Amino acid sequence: MPELRKDPVSSRWVIISTERGRRPSDFGTERERERVGFCPFCPGNEDKTPPEVLAYRPNGSGPNAPGWNLRVVPNKFAALQIEGDLNRQGDGMYDKMNGIGAHEVVIETPEHGDTFASMGEQRIEDVLWAFHDRVLDLRKDPRFKYILIFKNAGRAAGASLEHPHSQLIATPIIPKRVREEWDGAKEYYNYKERCVFCDIVRQEMSQEIRLISENDSFVALAPYASRFPFETWILPKAHDPFFEDAQKHEYVQLSKLLRDVSLRTEKVLLNPPYNLIIHNSPLRESDTRHFHWHIELMPKLTHVAGFEWGSGFYINPTPPEEAAKYLRDAKV
Amino acid sequence: MPELRKDPVSSRWVIISTERGRRPSDFGTERERERVGFCPFCPGNEDKTPPEVLAYRPNGSGPNAPGWNLRVVPNKFAALQIEGDLNRQGDGMYDKMNGIGAHEVVIETPEHGDTFASMGEQRIEDVLWAFHDRVLDLRKDPRFKYILIFKNAGRAAGASLEHPHSQLIATPIIPKRVREEWDGAKEYYNYKERCVFCDIVRQEMSQEIRLISENDSFVALAPYASRFPFETWILPKAHDPFFEDAQKHEYVQLSKLLRDVSLRTEKVLLNPPYNLIIHNSPLRESDTRHFHWHIELMPKLTHVAGFEWGSGFYINPTPPEEAAKYLRDAKV
Repeated sequence: MPELRKDPVSSRWVIISTERGRRPSDFGTERERERVGFCPFCPGNEDKTPPEVLAYRPNGSGPNAPGWNLRVVPNKFAALQIEGDLNRQGDGMYDKMNGIGAHEVVIETPEHGDTFASMGEQRIEDVLWAFHDRVLDLRKDPRFKYILIFKNAGRAAGASLEHPHSQLIATPIIPKRVREEWDGAKEYYNYKERCVFCDIVRQEMSQEIRLISENDSFVALAPYASRFPFETWILPKAHDPFFEDAQKHEYVQLSKLLRDVSLRTEKVLLNPPYNLIIHNSPLRESDTRHFHWHIELMPKLTHVAGFEWGSGFYINPTPPEEAAKYLRDAKV
Repeated sequence: MPELRKDPVSSRWVIISTERGRRPSDFGTERERERVGFCPFCPGNEDKTPPEVLAYRPNGSGPNAPGWNLRVVPNKFAALQIEGDLNRQGDGMYDKMNGIGAHEVVIETPEHGDTFASMGEQRIEDVLWAFHDRVLDLRKDPRFKYILIFKNAGRAAGASLEHPHSQLIATPIIPKRVREEWDGAKEYYNYKERCVFCDIVRQEMSQEIRLISENDSFVALAPYASRFPFETWILPKAHDPFFEDAQKHEYVQLSKLLRDVSLRTEKVLLNPPYNLIIHNSPLRESDTRHFHWHIELMPKLTHVAGFEWGSGFYINPTPPEEAAKYLRDAKV
């Protein structure tokens, strides 16, 4: 059983895999493992993943067989375990609980070589619906306080498999950065009586200097205090705390903008590894009106890592105004 | 002039280099630049760095010439600029100020191929004294609120030059993670009336399961809620808020333990890239008794990066008890 442990100084919860501990020699062989060539996510290999919890099969094929457009399966190497009690307890001065949670993989397409730029809008929309459907199901479990939705694309961004996929992790705690953003937005709301994200959308759309792309429902921009070169946020123009409360036409618009931004990024940065994270409201907070869900997209262009981790102090060598201009001007 | 910009949601300050903005094509060429072969930090190339602000020259050689054991020079590509006023101002809803600060490089040894494991203890002690001496000088400047001391070793850890060096950045703000640790330690102190780091030292020394190495004045351990495999903290056994207030015999002990830990890490993990950060008290806080300076050392073994950045949620595949055992048992 994995453990959730709390750092007594920062109050950060960390998942410690106590069962399949990686030994020193495991780290060196990582590079080789990716070259094996066999893909458990490709059609025909459905028996190499745990049984699907959701699939979109337009032609009505049976479960765990080819014929799908998208599958959602439990992660075979899950960071958290679905069965059991939290069993919160002390460990001397420390605090821990069982690593209870859900860890699922969204296999986004049967095409091994697809990207958000090469997929059609319909496939990206399917991915958004899969997030939506799984959140609705997972949030029923009263043990969970948050559902992280994210995508690591490319080895340098932490992806262990090449086949396009994203992940959901339902957790019994609220991750630290989510909590910080939540508290920061609440503080702004209490002071200004306005949503900070609505204010960002308003200023960026009027100034246009950090604007990357937009459509009726969404705007893509380079955030004012970008931590990384070409960091991109995608925000709904209308205020809404929850990703899963978006309407059908909004998912259509979002899939269009995600494709557009991916095409621009691929063009300007030559298909970089990246991380995409949906920042959504926690599941069980009574007051949510100060929060505005959005997507953060971080191309992985620099090695600068541990120093920023350790200090929380970021040095960004590319002004967001320049990054936005490159992406805005890209011919797509 | 670089800019310090504040994220309106998280209140994080970020340095944006507005002058030497890196373009998309700059990122691809990074790999080639490291292979050039010329080293501006090697003896004989003193004129390739800005003039030294400190040097240890046991044989009394003149400044900016060979004959040194250690040099401190301003960073030629400084993230912050020493001259000017902060000029705090709004930018619509956002906040910014001039990127004022000091950014210095400690060239730790004349030997290009040295590591903390191969250097003698005397050289490491010199490095600690250089940190000490520069902090004493920089803290006189009333514009600075914090001095970050860190070392990136190896390309994957963000080092752009191979020659052993560390860095100091004096900033007009307190970095976000420092502030969090500071506040977390204060909260613990207010509740328990004890220092959280003293409690950690006490529990770890009595349990011994996460202990890596120790001597009279310092202890090295794998923290209970380690974010990364083989993350290591080095703490002074005696409570002290400030690194620069350590006594002579403590720097001797610390250099011994740093060398010992480096030898163990090199042996077990085959000379990994790593980041080392000194977590010190801010310069101008009136109440410092809850803080206990320490060193955090993070070998860079995994690619998992952006997801953790975006969520603050860490999945550590190596339990700290196992990591500590490997390092503790290493024959050095």
